[in-house]
Amino acid sequence: LVGLDRVAIVGVGLIGGSIGLALKNRALASVVVGVGRDEATLEGAVRLGAIDRGTTDLVDAVAEAQVVVVCTPVSRIADDVRRAAESAPAQVLVTDAGSSKRQIVESVERHARSATVFVGAHPLAGSERRGAQHARADLFDGRVCVLTPTPRTRLDRSRLARNFWGALGCRVLEMSPAEHDEIVAYTSHLPHAVAAALASSVLPGWLPLAAGAYRDGTRVAAADTEIWTAIFRDNRGPLLKALGTLQERLDAFKYALMTDDEEAIRHWWNQARERRNLFDAQPDSPDPTQDPADRLT
Amino acid sequence: LVGLDRVAIVGVGLIGGSIGLALKNRALASVVVGVGRDEATLEGAVRLGAIDRGTTDLVDAVAEAQVVVVCTPVSRIADDVRRAAESAPAQVLVTDAGSSKRQIVESVERHARSATVFVGAHPLAGSERRGAQHARADLFDGRVCVLTPTPRTRLDRSRLARNFWGALGCRVLEMSPAEHDEIVAYTSHLPHAVAAALASSVLPGWLPLAAGAYRDGTRVAAADTEIWTAIFRDNRGPLLKALGTLQERLDAFKYALMTDDEEAIRHWWNQARERRNLFDAQPDSPDPTQDPADRLT
Repeated sequence: LVGLDRVAIVGVGLIGGSIGLALKNRALASVVVGVGRDEATLEGAVRLGAIDRGTTDLVDAVAEAQVVVVCTPVSRIADDVRRAAESAPAQVLVTDAGSSKRQIVESVERHARSATVFVGAHPLAGSERRGAQHARADLFDGRVCVLTPTPRTRLDRSRLARNFWGALGCRVLEMSPAEHDEIVAYTSHLPHAVAAALASSVLPGWLPLAAGAYRDGTRVAAADTEIWTAIFRDNRGPLLKALGTLQERLDAFKYALMTDDEEAIRHWWNQARERRNLFDAQPDSPDPTQDPADRLT
Repeated sequence: LVGLDRVAIVGVGLIGGSIGLALKNRALASVVVGVGRDEATLEGAVRLGAIDRGTTDLVDAVAEAQVVVVCTPVSRIADDVRRAAESAPAQVLVTDAGSSKRQIVESVERHARSATVFVGAHPLAGSERRGAQHARADLFDGRVCVLTPTPRTRLDRSRLARNFWGALGCRVLEMSPAEHDEIVAYTSHLPHAVAAALASSVLPGWLPLAAGAYRDGTRVAAADTEIWTAIFRDNRGPLLKALGTLQERLDAFKYALMTDDEEAIRHWWNQARERRNLFDAQPDSPDPTQDPADRLT
């Protein structure tokens, strides 16, 4: 990626702020403009060095941008993409960082102008924390970013999107929006739902007897309510299917327990253990040591 | 606790080894004897400084011990306690580190001699790793240890058990074996079962799109199969009840999703989020920074 003159980041929270820090740290953009609704948040992001200047005026911010990255909650992304596409230069790339893709892409593609400039993206990085104050320049190092081009996506935008997310440190994969949504329903949305179900299964008075397994199993239940309510709603079809699969796994375990079938319990556990070991054995499995703050939760 | 002349540790794995290291590091015992079935493992534990000497002969090891700690898998603990009680001096304290308590305590108390010398214990510390090579002298620092005395427990043994586990760094709580089992079914055994169900819900080909939520949510699914098969079987009544509670939480979420009830999803998530925040707000909630190795998984 040759250096960009101007990048606009719409929504300067954990993800948007980290994109800004990565752009500045890697000298990928001369000017990074942040768009937000709250002046104080934008000023904070400027002080952190995540953006060069902030504005509440999206139209003004994108007017001269070569790349616009929309990092607002999934329920707002399609609207923000359309507004950016209407006001940005003709050759702009608009991309996003939403955790679900099918509905966003469909909505964006209902408008000819935004369909022409948009490439959907989902960098698989984040934290249960929110806000630019938790942003990190290395948040995307080695993490997968899924791009979801469609038959309507322009090849030049697709190429620029690959270069852009790759330059931020991501390993870029491509798949259809529907395939993306089905997979992340299992790999990300289900783990969040399970963490929440587990968290609230334990009565407050019992928490002194909760230790590492509860701590790690519920970590992401501390994530932001509005962000996750929007993601769950947006991807509820695939998520319901994933919940059904989890149910089958739990039912198999319950049956083995009820019948006190030692061999079935052992087999059930071994299947899980091998899957987890397979995850650990991935050449670039997410490395928790990347985030010192993460260890404190 | 005044220094002990001789402590015997039956089962020198992660827990037994960590008890040995803590005893030596805190100068709580002059001689720590480890009992195991495998000579090589015992030699390794000696080299690590977790025990002074190892033997495969339990009778010999406990003959002069003031305290015997049984750290074998839950399916073997009652037998090992009885054997230790029969061969140790009259004034011995025999305690254990089993993750479930009711069946062990009932089994131990069916024998007059072992009922007299035994105090059940469960230090809430550990890891998905096994073996003395992962043992740490500070494994018990600030962690809760539940003691489960019964009406048959001798007061002097109860006091010595409190002192012993307290001297290892634990915060000691007392409750009945049945109450312990009901609570840890929710706080520890359920999180393990959920981690395993989640781990195997994700197909191998989808793992590249699994990130932090899957990583943390499935960490304990890497734990040892035999240890956890034994715990699940031993505590299956309370665990089935806990699985029922989890089911109710998941069903509430599914219903909210199916009806696309935004307010219900938000409310469901907030309940979980508040419970998790309550856990974090505990004055001595388990601190993951205690275990540098833990961060690498």
